[in-house]
Amino acid sequence: MRILVSNDDGIDSAGIHSLAEALKEIAEVTVVAPHKEQSAVGHAITMQTPLRVFEYQRNGSFFGYAVDGTPADCIKIGIRNLMTAPPDLVISGINHGSNTAINIIYSGTVSAAREGAIMEVPSIAISITSYRVWDFSYAAKVAKHLAQEVYKRKLPSGTMLNVNVPNLPEEEIKGILLTKQGKSKWDDIYEKRVDPYGRNYYWLTGSLMAVDVDPDLDQAAIKNNYVSISPIHFDLTDYNTFDRMRDWKIENLMNGR
Amino acid sequence: MRILVSNDDGIDSAGIHSLAEALKEIAEVTVVAPHKEQSAVGHAITMQTPLRVFEYQRNGSFFGYAVDGTPADCIKIGIRNLMTAPPDLVISGINHGSNTAINIIYSGTVSAAREGAIMEVPSIAISITSYRVWDFSYAAKVAKHLAQEVYKRKLPSGTMLNVNVPNLPEEEIKGILLTKQGKSKWDDIYEKRVDPYGRNYYWLTGSLMAVDVDPDLDQAAIKNNYVSISPIHFDLTDYNTFDRMRDWKIENLMNGR
Repeated sequence: MRILVSNDDGIDSAGIHSLAEALKEIAEVTVVAPHKEQSAVGHAITMQTPLRVFEYQRNGSFFGYAVDGTPADCIKIGIRNLMTAPPDLVISGINHGSNTAINIIYSGTVSAAREGAIMEVPSIAISITSYRVWDFSYAAKVAKHLAQEVYKRKLPSGTMLNVNVPNLPEEEIKGILLTKQGKSKWDDIYEKRVDPYGRNYYWLTGSLMAVDVDPDLDQAAIKNNYVSISPIHFDLTDYNTFDRMRDWKIENLMNGR
Repeated sequence: MRILVSNDDGIDSAGIHSLAEALKEIAEVTVVAPHKEQSAVGHAITMQTPLRVFEYQRNGSFFGYAVDGTPADCIKIGIRNLMTAPPDLVISGINHGSNTAINIIYSGTVSAAREGAIMEVPSIAISITSYRVWDFSYAAKVAKHLAQEVYKRKLPSGTMLNVNVPNLPEEEIKGILLTKQGKSKWDDIYEKRVDPYGRNYYWLTGSLMAVDVDPDLDQAAIKNNYVSISPIHFDLTDYNTFDRMRDWKIENLMNGR
């Protein structure tokens, strides 16, 4: 089995090292990850400037390619140019911080796995629910076993799995739940400050409004100390609204205008 | 009616000027747009650095705010800090280049409207199908009439409309179709080049594989010279796979491990 590993925290981060080490026990692993942190870049790709690729190694055992681009760039160039044969799986993470509910939209970690799914490779994004993590071993073990499961069972073309693991000792984790994307959104606040030259600037801050109580939802699952696994796709059509909008008779919008 | 206008081509681009001028006939318009081009940034938001906001004016008639961030940043800070009252609509565009099929994922234009929908404002993204456009007047007219329609009929919370207009003289446009997101994807190619210092770099290129023939799909509609209007949401859960994955009994994944 060949696995392409990426992330959005950058190739130096602890999460991707733990992930790659665990996956090496079951697969040939190629790491292609951003040179620098790329959190909240969403599904950005680099088109207006060229990409650079640097060979990376750490401790004589961890090898990879560092790309001066986004997570989605890493998957594209990894599959198209850097790997000698296409991967059987793409796995992105382990992200420092959860990627549930609306955060799926903003997440670079998820976009790397989504780019894998777009390129028709079964893909997984995995995150741990804290920015301060000392032990990735349980999350890495989940990734390893889930990789084997997905390799065996496959996923429909275009579907990826989004995994969130509570930042808890293994014995405090209650289990694993199949979940849906939650509805929680951010209550954004821009803090207005004045720089030393008298000019204004704005920092984005705010908090995730916890509206998800249905235990089927990703955000509720991790709050209840479960590992959350959600199938995610990129068909963004709102089919219900599509059906209801037939009443609009939109084809007549410009008649007589 | 109050309309917040943004785009991803930047506040200097011709498309946003045509759009704002047309909308001024029916609404109070506030323009908050990126200072510089932000194509293909997806749903990136700026968190690691602060945002700057500059007052912008052109020809003594077009006023707006230029933000040194992404399209999604513009919507967030526009609604939270720059507008004195929340908008009734968010309209993003007129983009230079189509945003159909997989491009919806990468598009900054669409992400601005999607951020509007996340913030519970009925939102529209509008694009014209060429990078070289001389006449935005028909697309601007479509935006104006669709804005009035959406204002009257509303949209479900979380749903936005993604509009693509063929780059043709008005009399050659065959009509308007309600559509779904197409399945066309990019055949990516990275062109490997060598810089003057002997180092490699890679340019992303390639072409959109036209697999969409069903006339219900956005990509087919514009190819057939119709205006395409698709309802888009940000619920990314793959419900079919969710149901089928119950058979995986994923809750047992780590049993005995």
